[in-house]
Amino acid sequence: MAGFAGAHLASAVTSAKGIGFIGSAYDISALQTELRNVSDILHNTLTTTENDTQTLPIGVGFLTFIVKSSDAIPLVKKYKPAAVWLFAAKELEDYTEWAEGIRSASPETKIWIQIGSVAGALKVMKLCRPDVLIMQGTDAGGHGWQRGAGIISLVPETRDALAAHGFCHVPLLAAGGIADGRGVAAALALGADGVVMGTRFLGAPETMLPHEGYLKTILEAEDGGQSTVRATIFDELKGPNIWPELFDGRGIITESYKDHVKGVGVEELRRLYKEAASSEEGGFGPNGRTIVWAGTGVGLVRQQKNAWEIVEEVRTEATVALKRACGRQCI
Amino acid sequence: MAGFAGAHLASAVTSAKGIGFIGSAYDISALQTELRNVSDILHNTLTTTENDTQTLPIGVGFLTFIVKSSDAIPLVKKYKPAAVWLFAAKELEDYTEWAEGIRSASPETKIWIQIGSVAGALKVMKLCRPDVLIMQGTDAGGHGWQRGAGIISLVPETRDALAAHGFCHVPLLAAGGIADGRGVAAALALGADGVVMGTRFLGAPETMLPHEGYLKTILEAEDGGQSTVRATIFDELKGPNIWPELFDGRGIITESYKDHVKGVGVEELRRLYKEAASSEEGGFGPNGRTIVWAGTGVGLVRQQKNAWEIVEEVRTEATVALKRACGRQCI
Repeated sequence: MAGFAGAHLASAVTSAKGIGFIGSAYDISALQTELRNVSDILHNTLTTTENDTQTLPIGVGFLTFIVKSSDAIPLVKKYKPAAVWLFAAKELEDYTEWAEGIRSASPETKIWIQIGSVAGALKVMKLCRPDVLIMQGTDAGGHGWQRGAGIISLVPETRDALAAHGFCHVPLLAAGGIADGRGVAAALALGADGVVMGTRFLGAPETMLPHEGYLKTILEAEDGGQSTVRATIFDELKGPNIWPELFDGRGIITESYKDHVKGVGVEELRRLYKEAASSEEGGFGPNGRTIVWAGTGVGLVRQQKNAWEIVEEVRTEATVALKRACGRQCI
Repeated sequence: MAGFAGAHLASAVTSAKGIGFIGSAYDISALQTELRNVSDILHNTLTTTENDTQTLPIGVGFLTFIVKSSDAIPLVKKYKPAAVWLFAAKELEDYTEWAEGIRSASPETKIWIQIGSVAGALKVMKLCRPDVLIMQGTDAGGHGWQRGAGIISLVPETRDALAAHGFCHVPLLAAGGIADGRGVAAALALGADGVVMGTRFLGAPETMLPHEGYLKTILEAEDGGQSTVRATIFDELKGPNIWPELFDGRGIITESYKDHVKGVGVEELRRLYKEAASSEEGGFGPNGRTIVWAGTGVGLVRQQKNAWEIVEEVRTEATVALKRACGRQCI
């Protein structure tokens, strides 16, 4: 959600008693602005009781292959977010330095690391003992590992492997394909301690979208496994792909993707993309060429709703889903 | 599970109060033998009370792109299985004739159709009103659609779409990545009415495996999203791929797959495969070349267990998982 999740989304999710995140990519000064904004919003809206800890009650996400820890850590020290979410290291070993830096700069900040395999989860635990592991399944929108499992098997197998290696108490969050309370209920049944949602919040007005066509594309998409696809070509359209090997991203199937499958070369795809993106429609709409990141849960995102409403609705739905499942199964 | 699930597995699952299936591929005379055997076993083991319906309390699976309905339906008429599971039609329209034939030959037999998309589920319902829909997610082992979602989003989106089109009461079963009771609990929370499991039963002695190396490979596989992959190359090793377009299969990553990714041609892969398969190890083991179909749940299959024990264990685990999830969530 780098570039999409800013101060307004993060503060709204936190105010609804979730934990909101600001996603960051290249631009550290933009992140600084969002952090200042979220700090202002939350200090104005939270009561003293709710905000009596030292930390700012939101998280910040860093893509560690493009952000320098020397740029990021001073911000962690200054704003003391409740959590830092690390993702997409070139090498998992890179997290060790990040974790040490964060712990030293802000001991109260929890370290969350997102990973997509059982082996990765074990390795990261051994390397730097994050406070939370986010297990990302292949249904997730945006970037993730090219190869992997959905959370249906990833979460329980990781839980067992962690327990077998003495890591019984690390909280696991499930990511990928969860867009309503039924997904939350399923994740809890699988042994997760909670969930994260990205795609669902693309339908929240608090999310920063580049064009109204983006929202329209999300709300109109159906049959999430058919309307989205994992591919690296999305990362080639604006210029050479900078993501580390092994990563790709899930997005809506566009003309750019279809042409790529037909064998159209990347230079021509870039030209067509640039042309489409500079039009009034921004390259969205039917026959669109612009990248629209989305997970397979996109078919469950059907109308725009405020972020707080999403959090509350999903929470209620999860309770209903578990009670219903329990009612038909528990003896 | 064509070629793997025969009389012994089907009867064991049914005796444990699941519903066991016999999977069939080309060989109708082999299917006839399995049906005769399962009929003998079940009539010997079930009490009259349990077996007072007209149907044989197991199901039979047909791959409709290779089996002729004129070969299959006489067997349905003769043995009256409780269910027929149809999968992999060249065109969804083909199911109409199959459904009519089955209903006419054995009105008590329920028609189950396996599908991998929301649109497919709606189309199949409109075409022939199956009694059960099996929603297959991309975590499933063996054959399925090349593109799709995991059950985490596939099941709830399909449930909603069916309801919106007036198909509120068709039972949905979830398939793909479910290998223990946590997966069952998750599927129920997602709105499924039940589940099917394939990979888990590869660890049951009642399953017909071609070689002891197959079992060893399954039990040793870890990190199911990393040790398996969806590919069409598996179907090219014994000769040209006969599966309809849009299908591929998930199996353990073998040397055959790795060489394919490196660019080794199919003729050479076939030669190497044939050589390996004719060795004493049957092409299994480290650096194996033989196809081992498995879903991402394979990392949860850790020891051989009797089929009845699997069914009972999974049922108990599902109850525990739902109670635990409900305990932390329900208010």
